[in-house]
Amino acid sequence: MLDRFDPRLDADFPPVDRQRLIGALRQVLPKGALLTETEALRPYETDGLAAYRSLPGVVALPHTVEQVQAILRTCCELGVPVVARGAGTGLSGGALPFPGCVLLSLARFDKILEIDADARTARVQPGVRNLAISQAVGPLGFFYAPDPSSQIACSIGGNVAENAGGVHCLKYGLTLHNILKLEVVTIEGERLTIGSEALDAPGFDLLALMTGSEGLLGVVTEVMVKLTPLPETTSVMLAAFDSVERAAAAVADIIAAGCIPAGLEMMDGPALRAAEDFVRAGYPRNAAAILLCELDGAAADVAEEAGRISQILHTAGAVEVRLAADEAERARFWAGRKNAFPAVGRIAPDYYCMDGTIPRRALPQVLTEIGRLAEKHGLAVANVFHAGDGNLHPLILYDANREGDIAKAEALGGEILELCVAVGGTITGEHGVGREKIDQMCVQFGAAEIETFFALKRAFDPGGLLNPGKAIPTLNRCAEFGRMHVHRGELPFAHLPRF
Amino acid sequence: MLDRFDPRLDADFPPVDRQRLIGALRQVLPKGALLTETEALRPYETDGLAAYRSLPGVVALPHTVEQVQAILRTCCELGVPVVARGAGTGLSGGALPFPGCVLLSLARFDKILEIDADARTARVQPGVRNLAISQAVGPLGFFYAPDPSSQIACSIGGNVAENAGGVHCLKYGLTLHNILKLEVVTIEGERLTIGSEALDAPGFDLLALMTGSEGLLGVVTEVMVKLTPLPETTSVMLAAFDSVERAAAAVADIIAAGCIPAGLEMMDGPALRAAEDFVRAGYPRNAAAILLCELDGAAADVAEEAGRISQILHTAGAVEVRLAADEAERARFWAGRKNAFPAVGRIAPDYYCMDGTIPRRALPQVLTEIGRLAEKHGLAVANVFHAGDGNLHPLILYDANREGDIAKAEALGGEILELCVAVGGTITGEHGVGREKIDQMCVQFGAAEIETFFALKRAFDPGGLLNPGKAIPTLNRCAEFGRMHVHRGELPFAHLPRF
Repeated sequence: MLDRFDPRLDADFPPVDRQRLIGALRQVLPKGALLTETEALRPYETDGLAAYRSLPGVVALPHTVEQVQAILRTCCELGVPVVARGAGTGLSGGALPFPGCVLLSLARFDKILEIDADARTARVQPGVRNLAISQAVGPLGFFYAPDPSSQIACSIGGNVAENAGGVHCLKYGLTLHNILKLEVVTIEGERLTIGSEALDAPGFDLLALMTGSEGLLGVVTEVMVKLTPLPETTSVMLAAFDSVERAAAAVADIIAAGCIPAGLEMMDGPALRAAEDFVRAGYPRNAAAILLCELDGAAADVAEEAGRISQILHTAGAVEVRLAADEAERARFWAGRKNAFPAVGRIAPDYYCMDGTIPRRALPQVLTEIGRLAEKHGLAVANVFHAGDGNLHPLILYDANREGDIAKAEALGGEILELCVAVGGTITGEHGVGREKIDQMCVQFGAAEIETFFALKRAFDPGGLLNPGKAIPTLNRCAEFGRMHVHRGELPFAHLPRF
Repeated sequence: MLDRFDPRLDADFPPVDRQRLIGALRQVLPKGALLTETEALRPYETDGLAAYRSLPGVVALPHTVEQVQAILRTCCELGVPVVARGAGTGLSGGALPFPGCVLLSLARFDKILEIDADARTARVQPGVRNLAISQAVGPLGFFYAPDPSSQIACSIGGNVAENAGGVHCLKYGLTLHNILKLEVVTIEGERLTIGSEALDAPGFDLLALMTGSEGLLGVVTEVMVKLTPLPETTSVMLAAFDSVERAAAAVADIIAAGCIPAGLEMMDGPALRAAEDFVRAGYPRNAAAILLCELDGAAADVAEEAGRISQILHTAGAVEVRLAADEAERARFWAGRKNAFPAVGRIAPDYYCMDGTIPRRALPQVLTEIGRLAEKHGLAVANVFHAGDGNLHPLILYDANREGDIAKAEALGGEILELCVAVGGTITGEHGVGREKIDQMCVQFGAAEIETFFALKRAFDPGGLLNPGKAIPTLNRCAEFGRMHVHRGELPFAHLPRF
């Protein structure tokens, strides 16, 4: 993890007269909506990937769409880069300021504009917190399904930018599958309405294109989300295994049997023990791995599915299968999982959270291989992940104060992502590429695909002003990275089966 | 319906020396893979929208990806438009040749390359028929879920181009939700691999962008589809109503209760009587409308859901609710629905099939309004549709040999689509815009959105050679169309509630 933002290989802009920029923005923004003093800029120099830091030129805090349009028009005219920011909880550095940029905070767009229970939709501003939507619609019998771990704090606009997932996306889908319409402002200050309340929209699928585009194509100023009926019953099952590989195989068995649980999470020994020591979740401390399987729906269906899954788990070699006896036990089971990251933070001075996805059936092999890589680099790894959809979150444990540890953690993290690609997976599940994984994009894609991404980027933002240096590496960068990563001309992980 | 292709307002290309084009294509194609004689071109002059006709310059029938690359490179160099064609069953004129173009048929790409039962995927060439996939994987316990009415004939490549749906897309999603990866060749002849077998792919969502792009961005040369486990039981329920509006309201009630049937179809009186007279499906001839509701899954779940839905239907005012007693009766119920189009063809010399979508709750009002519009134009309409997802297929009955009927049918069709837009819906559910609905795109979108579509188009195809004159109208065309359709400065259908 670098503590600098070195855009050299990705983007460069001619210097801008800062006073001129400030003057132009003051004309379009009300008092208090523009921060220019270094001390006021400091809180914006990083996001959830705190090891990367860089100071913006100014911070704009608009509270109307017209102001957003005016800010973007000003940046477009003056050729100044702009980085949009929601709650700043992202883990890949997507909201890391480009040095000297306009940091456009959507924090003041915090209103739920409309709830339509009949249509099962809500129209919200981008700064509304993810959990606030579920809280607002709960009394009407609904919730907003995607639930990233940061849901208390993260904003729906940021969720759209990263196509956020969460525990429940196995059953309910990612952000893209839970939104209907967006209002977006382009770098030229044009307002676009994309998507539709009906089944499908004609024309190119701009809704999908914008979702997960990490702030590179436009700034979201309104989101229409789908609301999901609260399930009648929710139940959670804990299964313990004496081998990580067996737990991983059980995941594949459950899905292969046609069951789609609401959530299917896995924690390995180091992770579950850290969580148990932290929150007393009731996990079996001596297990090599546990699965948490959440079922929801009508009471009869949940009971029937719980019976089927319990049988599958036993057949797969679970040494213990336990259904939460009541709501209190269910809450404890989840508390362990939800606090796994801070729990791991108690057993190591620092940890680095990775986010790759793999085809489910590759789980056992990939876990073995992660263990081998960790040993090679001399670092410990605790594994916590959304096993049901093959989304891994290995936590690499290190000590930033120990010479060479940061570099080792970075190298190990990179190799884990390349391992994901080698088995047919991807370098990100739900955290996005941002700044963090920009080099691994060179491993994921060839030159033709990367050029297509840039062609698309230019279609929306010819000057490359929106969130420069993120998500898509230049071929120049890939060439430099490639030089570092040629393994005697062989593909890494050639000994593994390609799934 | 025009019997000409007038690209004047959309695209224009400098004339090309046809002999030079033929010479260049002969160099890259084997014998028999290039048709140049007018009589050989004739079968390609139209697709499923047979009223539109236009002759291609040549027809290319490649059977390797390298040949597709070479054809596209040749067209790119010579500046010749290219129109890709699957099985030619599309209903919006998406495969209608641009005059003098290279018609690129994917008919020889007809191999299923790989079936992976563990991963529940199949890798297929684009010319493989939709139904052929389900037939090939059926013995392994799977099917390919999207099932357009033309599934016996239509090809998977065409399905991707139009983001095809079908009866089962209510539960199982559109084509986009049932594919994982595509191989695409660009107009420059570059081969791109887009999508991923894992949960989500980093970078912009090219898979969604390509799906439904109607041949404007690239040519699909390989598709990885998801396979769905065959349900344990399938059951179908017929409900009869003495008013169309009540049937429509029942649809909303079923969905509002949280039931997602595998299919939920509606037919009005004229449609159901035509079908009954044609195939003896067992429909009640005197009903004003019927619903067909298909349920699938585990036997116990299906039985329970059938009970719930039956109750909802009775409460909603159904005069008769009947569960198919056996597989034979189930097949009869569906035979009526599946043959509704040819059945309607028996009661009128010609029919024009529309394809709009609306928010479900607008169904009753929109049906009333369609009746009013039909009366105004003096034409009859039979309504058959995927009611569950608000996808309408009004069939406008007319007689092409009666003076003025064609113009009336076109005018009525256009007004029905504008009605769909007015209530918050769209001008196409699953048939695409193609050539047919290009003017209605001006009603659906504003200038900013249309310019964004063109910017995207240019990113992939700067010369505008891929399927020109389809799917996106020029602003010039919209201006001409707009002049024709200004209703005293008021929006059409201003008297209807906007949903």
